[in-house]
Amino acid sequence: MLKVQVLGHPTGDNALWVTADSGQGQTRLLFDSGEDTLDALPLAEIQAIDHLLFSHLHMDHVAGFDTFFRANFDRTTRENHIWGPPGTARILWHRFQGYWWNYAPELHATWRVHDVDGQEVRTFRFEAREAFEAMHEEGTRPLHGPLLTTAEANVEAIPLKHHGLSLGYVVREPQRVTVDAGQLGALGLKGGPWLARLKAGAKGSLDVHGTPYEADELAARLLRRQTGESLAYLTDFLLDGAEQGRLAPLLAGVDTLYAEAQYAPEDAALAGRHQHTTVTQVAALALVAGVRELCLLHLSRRYGPDRWPELLQAARSIFPTTHFPAGWVDG
Amino acid sequence: MLKVQVLGHPTGDNALWVTADSGQGQTRLLFDSGEDTLDALPLAEIQAIDHLLFSHLHMDHVAGFDTFFRANFDRTTRENHIWGPPGTARILWHRFQGYWWNYAPELHATWRVHDVDGQEVRTFRFEAREAFEAMHEEGTRPLHGPLLTTAEANVEAIPLKHHGLSLGYVVREPQRVTVDAGQLGALGLKGGPWLARLKAGAKGSLDVHGTPYEADELAARLLRRQTGESLAYLTDFLLDGAEQGRLAPLLAGVDTLYAEAQYAPEDAALAGRHQHTTVTQVAALALVAGVRELCLLHLSRRYGPDRWPELLQAARSIFPTTHFPAGWVDG
Repeated sequence: MLKVQVLGHPTGDNALWVTADSGQGQTRLLFDSGEDTLDALPLAEIQAIDHLLFSHLHMDHVAGFDTFFRANFDRTTRENHIWGPPGTARILWHRFQGYWWNYAPELHATWRVHDVDGQEVRTFRFEAREAFEAMHEEGTRPLHGPLLTTAEANVEAIPLKHHGLSLGYVVREPQRVTVDAGQLGALGLKGGPWLARLKAGAKGSLDVHGTPYEADELAARLLRRQTGESLAYLTDFLLDGAEQGRLAPLLAGVDTLYAEAQYAPEDAALAGRHQHTTVTQVAALALVAGVRELCLLHLSRRYGPDRWPELLQAARSIFPTTHFPAGWVDG
Repeated sequence: MLKVQVLGHPTGDNALWVTADSGQGQTRLLFDSGEDTLDALPLAEIQAIDHLLFSHLHMDHVAGFDTFFRANFDRTTRENHIWGPPGTARILWHRFQGYWWNYAPELHATWRVHDVDGQEVRTFRFEAREAFEAMHEEGTRPLHGPLLTTAEANVEAIPLKHHGLSLGYVVREPQRVTVDAGQLGALGLKGGPWLARLKAGAKGSLDVHGTPYEADELAARLLRRQTGESLAYLTDFLLDGAEQGRLAPLLAGVDTLYAEAQYAPEDAALAGRHQHTTVTQVAALALVAGVRELCLLHLSRRYGPDRWPELLQAARSIFPTTHFPAGWVDG
């Protein structure tokens, strides 16, 4: 399952904290790190974040980075990965060096920052013991399919337009394959290593405690395939008709769309000029993309709390299963 | 008067926010910017800070910089100055570039960062419209007397030892010269521009509404000289006997000493190794320096709140007018 928490306040900086939990393990993802957004998390949770993924590096998305980095700068118990649009590695190189590292020789952590555009991922390595001074280029790989894959989730990047390239992200749990215990009993079979082979996609004849079985037939009887949960995080982006047409197919099968909704419908011109969205634009995207739910983030400060119910209603008139994050507004 | 607020929590990051208010104007100073320390200040107050002065650039003193900078990065209504030990300008150069500045061409602010050692001040200028990319060296001046002087306060730097050079600061209001209205009436004189000249230190014969007066005699009768308030901020420093001997004279005339007190008396060895202080070391410094009050900051996390009264008592046994910042502990 995906456990999701929107961090930050309705008109303040936001971040999205996602834990993909398979029951056997977790992958923890943090999308953006706006100012004070991490204050809601216990230190141990910040220390367990596997990947920090930036939409882009404007102040309101990176001003809480110190809180993340301070908790993890010399972490050697996990890999340290940061992702973002082109230019991210250079900006992080600066951020890494925004401290006095007189004790760097005692440090051990390695960090990797990945610059992602639509086609490629370019990776740079940084060493804490070098006081993060060198950007070690580790090469460029073509981007086909997910940006990253763990046992609990895969993450795809979606290029967005925001005065340049911003990144949206889609998180999908892998399909889960479970064994129907009733059918197992009905066939008079007992579990064993053969079941793992079957779940892993064994073909042809499969030895089950000395008896050969046709793997495909056995799989059809015993295995249940369950689609995992999924979400998309899209913030700070232009959403005109062309972009809606481009983005909707990329959100295929997504359960919940977390999307910025800076502007009221009547301020569409402003939204276009600032390359942000209106509540109704994201509602229309949710509708066309066929997601299950829409969660609205990152409201403009120009609208007081008295107007939020109306903004929500405007979105719901297009896409009924729209909501604000828990605790922001009733309704 | 000096209005002072210790920002942050007892064992968390600290910062010191000082407003020197002459009645005619204010100078606002922020010493350090630890994580979340500025959350206590209204945005308008952050935007009115004239000088940010760093003791040093370890994480716990700079991790709240984004909050300061975000409020002020394109400020053109005041000069923008940051001060700190050697290396500060280079670290700030990195911090300034820790954002995506695609809109830099629309910006106008100029920033100056001053690297201060015991002898010299080396200044670098940064331009927002250049996306802060260039460090424009503006030269080095010898440091005699105050680091900076405004109508409301002057600030001196005190070199401290903390794995290198850290800076302490002393803030002193200028002597205030007021006019004794009773004496003015007794002499049968009325105010006018001559009074400003007298207060400014006029010598020889002074024309008062057409009558010549001896300025010195008039000044002795009319002017009252009042010493301004003063404080010192010393954090993260080694305080052995030699350092006490060196520092005490530099604190001459200081009203209130705000000092780190990381360790309990029994952990003096640890304090020495980490180049921090114990509560009794700073109390002894306060006593020898002859300050009026001592305010203890920056306690180590190793001591729970149950031990704070005891730490305070240990300091008071040496220097009775010791206290914690308002709101930290009763007693």
